[in-house]
Amino acid sequence: MDVTLDDLARLVGGKVTGDGKTVIRAVNGIREAGAGDITFLANSKYAPLLASTKASAVIVADGTPAPIPALSVRNPDFAFGKVAEHLNGAASRPPAGVHPTAVVSPKAVLGKNVSIGAGTVLEDGASIGDNSVLHPQVYVGAEAVIGPDALIYPQVVVRERCRIGARVILHSGTVVGSDGFGYATDKGVHHKIPQVGIVVIEDDVELGANVTIDRARFGRTVIGKGTKIDNLVQIGHNVVLGQGCLLVSQAGIAGSTRLGNYVVMAGQSGLIGHLEIGDGAIITAQSGLTKDVPAGGVMSGSPASDRRTHLKELAALSKLPEALQEIRKLRQEIEELRKKTKE
Amino acid sequence: MDVTLDDLARLVGGKVTGDGKTVIRAVNGIREAGAGDITFLANSKYAPLLASTKASAVIVADGTPAPIPALSVRNPDFAFGKVAEHLNGAASRPPAGVHPTAVVSPKAVLGKNVSIGAGTVLEDGASIGDNSVLHPQVYVGAEAVIGPDALIYPQVVVRERCRIGARVILHSGTVVGSDGFGYATDKGVHHKIPQVGIVVIEDDVELGANVTIDRARFGRTVIGKGTKIDNLVQIGHNVVLGQGCLLVSQAGIAGSTRLGNYVVMAGQSGLIGHLEIGDGAIITAQSGLTKDVPAGGVMSGSPASDRRTHLKELAALSKLPEALQEIRKLRQEIEELRKKTKE
Amino acid sequence: MDVTLDDLARLVGGKVTGDGKTVIRAVNGIREAGAGDITFLANSKYAPLLASTKASAVIVADGTPAPIPALSVRNPDFAFGKVAEHLNGAASRPPAGVHPTAVVSPKAVLGKNVSIGAGTVLEDGASIGDNSVLHPQVYVGAEAVIGPDALIYPQVVVRERCRIGARVILHSGTVVGSDGFGYATDKGVHHKIPQVGIVVIEDDVELGANVTIDRARFGRTVIGKGTKIDNLVQIGHNVVLGQGCLLVSQAGIAGSTRLGNYVVMAGQSGLIGHLEIGDGAIITAQSGLTKDVPAGGVMSGSPASDRRTHLKELAALSKLPEALQEIRKLRQEIEELRKKTKE
Repeated sequence: MDVTLDDLARLVGGKVTGDGKTVIRAVNGIREAGAGDITFLANSKYAPLLASTKASAVIVADGTPAPIPALSVRNPDFAFGKVAEHLNGAASRPPAGVHPTAVVSPKAVLGKNVSIGAGTVLEDGASIGDNSVLHPQVYVGAEAVIGPDALIYPQVVVRERCRIGARVILHSGTVVGSDGFGYATDKGVHHKIPQVGIVVIEDDVELGANVTIDRARFGRTVIGKGTKIDNLVQIGHNVVLGQGCLLVSQAGIAGSTRLGNYVVMAGQSGLIGHLEIGDGAIITAQSGLTKDVPAGGVMSGSPASDRRTHLKELAALSKLPEALQEIRKLRQEIEELRKKTKE
Repeated sequence: MDVTLDDLARLVGGKVTGDGKTVIRAVNGIREAGAGDITFLANSKYAPLLASTKASAVIVADGTPAPIPALSVRNPDFAFGKVAEHLNGAASRPPAGVHPTAVVSPKAVLGKNVSIGAGTVLEDGASIGDNSVLHPQVYVGAEAVIGPDALIYPQVVVRERCRIGARVILHSGTVVGSDGFGYATDKGVHHKIPQVGIVVIEDDVELGANVTIDRARFGRTVIGKGTKIDNLVQIGHNVVLGQGCLLVSQAGIAGSTRLGNYVVMAGQSGLIGHLEIGDGAIITAQSGLTKDVPAGGVMSGSPASDRRTHLKELAALSKLPEALQEIRKLRQEIEELRKKTKE
Repeated sequence: MDVTLDDLARLVGGKVTGDGKTVIRAVNGIREAGAGDITFLANSKYAPLLASTKASAVIVADGTPAPIPALSVRNPDFAFGKVAEHLNGAASRPPAGVHPTAVVSPKAVLGKNVSIGAGTVLEDGASIGDNSVLHPQVYVGAEAVIGPDALIYPQVVVRERCRIGARVILHSGTVVGSDGFGYATDKGVHHKIPQVGIVVIEDDVELGANVTIDRARFGRTVIGKGTKIDNLVQIGHNVVLGQGCLLVSQAGIAGSTRLGNYVVMAGQSGLIGHLEIGDGAIITAQSGLTKDVPAGGVMSGSPASDRRTHLKELAALSKLPEALQEIRKLRQEIEELRKKTKE
């Protein structure tokens, strides 16, 4: 699909510098781009690559100079996403209908225009909303509900009675509704505590690949509207996530912890159970939280403390080997002074 | 199912305070409960919620006062589990029989009353014990043995020749018997070392979702009786776990490490290979162990040391920024004293 | 299969001490071995076990004394692997052909002698190289290409257009080509950035179980030739790994980071996005890297620094509680000296 830079400016609302008639055929990275490609610059770390990129045009933030035809916008990431979507067309979706090898209970309920892939299993009372796509080899348990316009990739499991909202995307290998990790230990035996609750995934959530979301012991584990979760993240039973949270890969949350809205957990960070995390809090990578966090808190370290405190401690630690030598010197000098004052 | 608080006291052996005729219909969390629900208080953090809960009754530990009808027991978690099971009835299980879309080798051996779900594959010589349930889309490799009363959720893989005991529960996405990570590097090429051993999972083990248990290089990787493993945990080849261990989500154990009985690994903790961990040892969250641990040891930090030592170091670190200033002051004062003693 | 120690010496090129006519039937670990077994000693930690092993023979490194018949070689790990392969024969592979329950698009392309297991799905334009084995319940997306001699275990997902080289091994539960984690946040809404690139896995790569490799935003996520990746590892979008890297279980790499050749990431280590890691660098277990690393760098800690610096800081930290007491003493002594000099 060929368009001009001027066309793209009309699409995303930016301002062109250089030749607006430049023809654009595809999107690409700043290193990989060639003639006919448009690239973008969102991270200033890559600004030096602009001088040598072979792209025909670039999307930059307002005020950023560019040596090639450019489209200046408020949010280059967002604009580039829209351009990519425009140039690639809507992602191809499988045709509507139920594949002959799918195993759909006569008691399952299918909306209009759904696509059910090969080998996918829908148990009694499972319900799929209009226009939803279930790729091959998906499992949807009894009485589970999937909303409209969902996109479920191959080999996802949604266990019985869980509820998935509209426009939700679930990537391969993800398990929604496995039992929470709960045992009552009595005389050396770990007795399983029944996990009779469900998982509720609200609208516009996306879960990455091989994510695990445990069902509640009773009641609901909740993933709030518009929250995005990366690969291999663990969400324990009865956890409640607010809206618009971002959980990066390999983060984990133990049972019954509650997050506000727009909380960010960076990669490999962890929260113990039964915490309250305020709106907009940020947990930095590999940090381990053991205490509640107020709204807007930024926490680092394991165990985590306020980020500024943590950075001060790290800076101090880097001076510690020298400080220990200094202490030894002070000791010697004091001994010498003592001798002198005794004289 | 309606029962009275007195009925539940007979079931779990506790003592009623308040109206024993209170009718109970369901279990629920202390925040979510309404009329007809029984809730419980196991974590004292939630005691203040007792004043406002809308539950009709509560299960508490012996000696805990409650403003509503209550059942006092030695172990509220355990009692609540039994009550939940009683009120919810046994979890529904699929009917016995082999689904027509399952692919069962004529050389596989099925016990009495087994249930084999849609699309599940049993290879030559696979053996399934009496009353076991294999949900849809499970894979059981050649000559693998699954004991009686097992519960295997959708999309579990049990590779060839692995042996699973009685009453084992395996959650979705879990892989038992993948190859261990072993290479012999020669002249810059990593040559694969054949992994010809198996995994043995003893009775009453439960594995969470998306767990990985590697088969032994030779011999056996062993998960001991009654051990419980949470989601996304990694067990390397030739690891041996004792009985009754608890491994919380995202913990990992490298090859050939051996755990005693009742070892606890908290979330995101890790053990390097070839360690010996004694009975009842505890590895705290995100800790990384590089040395053997005696029975009863409690280890923290990365690299981990004895917990008390680690806490002392953390406390000292929090005072370090101030201590560095104090050292600078001491230096100045000594300089002044020197001048004076020279005078 | 019975062979003598002399036979094995001819196979792997080592030198026999003791009775070369010793009959060997199987390989086994030094603890588990019995009569007829050959074991090996690669880790000196286990040398004391040589005195009590019941093995009939042992493979040791050149110059290592052994109380039983022994085969001395340069690389015991590598030699033992060859012996194990020899004694166990080639791993059994399923027969060539397409299982009747597999769902193979008429537009898919199958090489010679391929094996396609029960319930495996190949979408339009998927291509499978000669002699490749796809076990049951595998998914290969549209236009994805799998090279010759690949071994794909049950329940692997390879998404559309990804390209897998020759002799690649993918373990169960692994997902290749899930969408990268990319959103452009505008007015509180996280808009999905289309992930239109692919994953390229070069020849001789092995991926463990439940690994996730995200497709590029555009262009390619690349796993270089001969690189080996353990279970539950996360590779973000647009990451490029060089040749011969080793990534141990639960390691994670955020988007756009580039590794050279022969980089080692130990267990549970993490790299933030947009880094450059030089050839042969080592990231130790649980470390978290936030900066570029030159070739040969060894990095530890979270955030990571040069390993020697990190070890110095850890050693200093262990002395800190005592140092704080010493500072208090110095303070007292200075106060006393002051008083004296004032006198």
